[in-house]
Amino acid sequence: MSQTDRPRIHLRPNKNAQPLRFGAPWAFADTLVLDRRARNLAPGTLVVLEDGERTPLGLAAFNPASRIAARMLSRDPDEAVDQAWFEARFARALALRETLYDAPFYRLIHAEADGLPGVVVDRFGDACVVQPNAAWAELLLEPMVAALRTVTGVSTVVKNASGRARALEGLDAVSSVLAGALDGPVDVPMNGAIYRADLEGGQKTGLFYDQRPNHAFAARLGRGRRVLDVFSHVGGFALAALAGGAQAALAVDGSAPALALAGEGAARSGVAERFATRQGDAFEVMADLAEAGERFGLVVCDPPAFAPAKPALEAGLRAYERIARLAAGLVEPGGYLVLCSCSHAADLAKFRTASLRGIGRAGRAAQILSTGEAGPDHPVHPYLAESSYLKAVFLRLDG
Amino acid sequence: MSQTDRPRIHLRPNKNAQPLRFGAPWAFADTLVLDRRARNLAPGTLVVLEDGERTPLGLAAFNPASRIAARMLSRDPDEAVDQAWFEARFARALALRETLYDAPFYRLIHAEADGLPGVVVDRFGDACVVQPNAAWAELLLEPMVAALRTVTGVSTVVKNASGRARALEGLDAVSSVLAGALDGPVDVPMNGAIYRADLEGGQKTGLFYDQRPNHAFAARLGRGRRVLDVFSHVGGFALAALAGGAQAALAVDGSAPALALAGEGAARSGVAERFATRQGDAFEVMADLAEAGERFGLVVCDPPAFAPAKPALEAGLRAYERIARLAAGLVEPGGYLVLCSCSHAADLAKFRTASLRGIGRAGRAAQILSTGEAGPDHPVHPYLAESSYLKAVFLRLDG
Repeated sequence: MSQTDRPRIHLRPNKNAQPLRFGAPWAFADTLVLDRRARNLAPGTLVVLEDGERTPLGLAAFNPASRIAARMLSRDPDEAVDQAWFEARFARALALRETLYDAPFYRLIHAEADGLPGVVVDRFGDACVVQPNAAWAELLLEPMVAALRTVTGVSTVVKNASGRARALEGLDAVSSVLAGALDGPVDVPMNGAIYRADLEGGQKTGLFYDQRPNHAFAARLGRGRRVLDVFSHVGGFALAALAGGAQAALAVDGSAPALALAGEGAARSGVAERFATRQGDAFEVMADLAEAGERFGLVVCDPPAFAPAKPALEAGLRAYERIARLAAGLVEPGGYLVLCSCSHAADLAKFRTASLRGIGRAGRAAQILSTGEAGPDHPVHPYLAESSYLKAVFLRLDG
Repeated sequence: MSQTDRPRIHLRPNKNAQPLRFGAPWAFADTLVLDRRARNLAPGTLVVLEDGERTPLGLAAFNPASRIAARMLSRDPDEAVDQAWFEARFARALALRETLYDAPFYRLIHAEADGLPGVVVDRFGDACVVQPNAAWAELLLEPMVAALRTVTGVSTVVKNASGRARALEGLDAVSSVLAGALDGPVDVPMNGAIYRADLEGGQKTGLFYDQRPNHAFAARLGRGRRVLDVFSHVGGFALAALAGGAQAALAVDGSAPALALAGEGAARSGVAERFATRQGDAFEVMADLAEAGERFGLVVCDPPAFAPAKPALEAGLRAYERIARLAAGLVEPGGYLVLCSCSHAADLAKFRTASLRGIGRAGRAAQILSTGEAGPDHPVHPYLAESSYLKAVFLRLDG
């Protein structure tokens, strides 16, 4: 189909087009005229988005099945979306990461903020893991992956289809290796440690790059101290702390495979003799440690999202408070506590309040040293600035 | 006066004492019973603060002339506030900074969060600058400074009385050297650069430590690029960027003495041949540079507080928008922009919105890479968590 033959979708006459004109990335379904013709378009169809007076606003990816019905791809409604188009976007994203990091291990594409709505790409040296979490990206996966390989030169590309967002777009959950091959987990150097990431079977893309700056700061606080890393996954905070000079670290997680990778990482990092793991329910393990009178110089809790969406907010905040209370009780006098949340629904103020309440219930007083967010390889779209999901609150507890 | 003879001040009967019981640092004048006896107490008098039923809440510093009439010093109403008391607080604060930094250059005391309400102490190697910005600290300056010298071992202590808060406490603005002697500006190593700080004649304590992590991140972004540092003071962002590998840096400031110190710092840092200064009004200089077609790979604007308090909020936000518009026009395609605010009244969301509006008016699109705050030697009291004043928004502009 030539560009000019693209279907046209327009805003309802009473809807304000100014935000889209000034850069808003989305048009929600309830702002669009969705007649039968529109509803019959295949999910992911590229369309010309128009305002209520039929003036073009730009090129959008359309999905009648999604609440986010239109995702802006370009201000130019006639732009060709081909391999070269993807190459330009990857090159721009790569330039930022090469400024930020000395080695090719980072989130390369962070969706809307990097100009590829709904698409996440993490790079692990010679391999990339792609999450095409919007229908348009699934349709254009071939030129996208070709462009990715051309720009980065990676030989292996994995498609990870486990993201929750795919179901909202009507997409399947079938992951696969799209190019090259994987021979088990890969080494990921970060903050002086070497992590092991399972790019096929792991959670999300196998490793969370977003905590990198928070790992680094926690490692500074943990020097010479005993570290407890709860919800450790593949050893995120624990291995960084050991590489930074922690005396010892105990990693707690519910997942035995994740802890096995953490152990491999500890060996690769040369810190295995200072590293231990305990598999089990985090709440129970923390209660057991408290019972046993254990205390640590640094305790980190980086749980999964307890409040991913609004209906779970109140229960989620209670869980964060409980985590904080249990964790604070395990911090030695004058020691440090790091509490993290990756819940979209719990904003910083709510999460911090719940955490401080929990610390108070443990009978401890605190100073707030710093509040961390996701690293800069997770840029934020200006119109989604309120959406930054990751919070890491660094505290020192009373002596 | 023995501890038990301390005057007693109590909350009005209908005032909730729970926050104070759980750690709130202040009782405002309008929550207290301020009879003639209370109003006649000398500013800074130590008192036993009681709830409405006359149950002691703890030891507080009282100032009938201040809106913040009582500042909590201890949960123990009978605690002696002597040199040993100050020593314990300084030792606790020092332990944190020695964890955070390899060299003795940092904010040592950040007021309420470090247990010394209204008191700020910055350390510059063998010298400390003390800002006793509350009446109680002025009264107890002698044991406080003795404790500071004992704990840190510094030989020089300067009292800086220029803080705006002192007038609210009924204190004078007379600065002096309390111990040792100064022989001109001192060297301050930070982020690979060496700054020159004038501890007697400079703004505040001569150098702002709060931007340290933001200097470091900006330096990373500025590698190999031309840097424009507007409101540079003694070269904060410019010298860090040059030390980090920037191609060249131009520092703009209204203060010729500040720029002279920046120049000295550039020489000390071995980057003088890549460093230039321009003295003048920041808005005018930016307009001139734009007129001349100058473009930079990194532009930083770190202005004084345009919205220090609520009445100045709207005008302040307009000034931030104007700064952003001017600055964005000076950023080369794909370059970086760092916009800072130290305004208490403009919270992050408001400041970010004003900044993004200005960038949009310059016809530029942006990604938000990171949002920085004051460094961890500026801890925050849990009850004042909303008050963190420093914001640094890091952006990349379109190519």
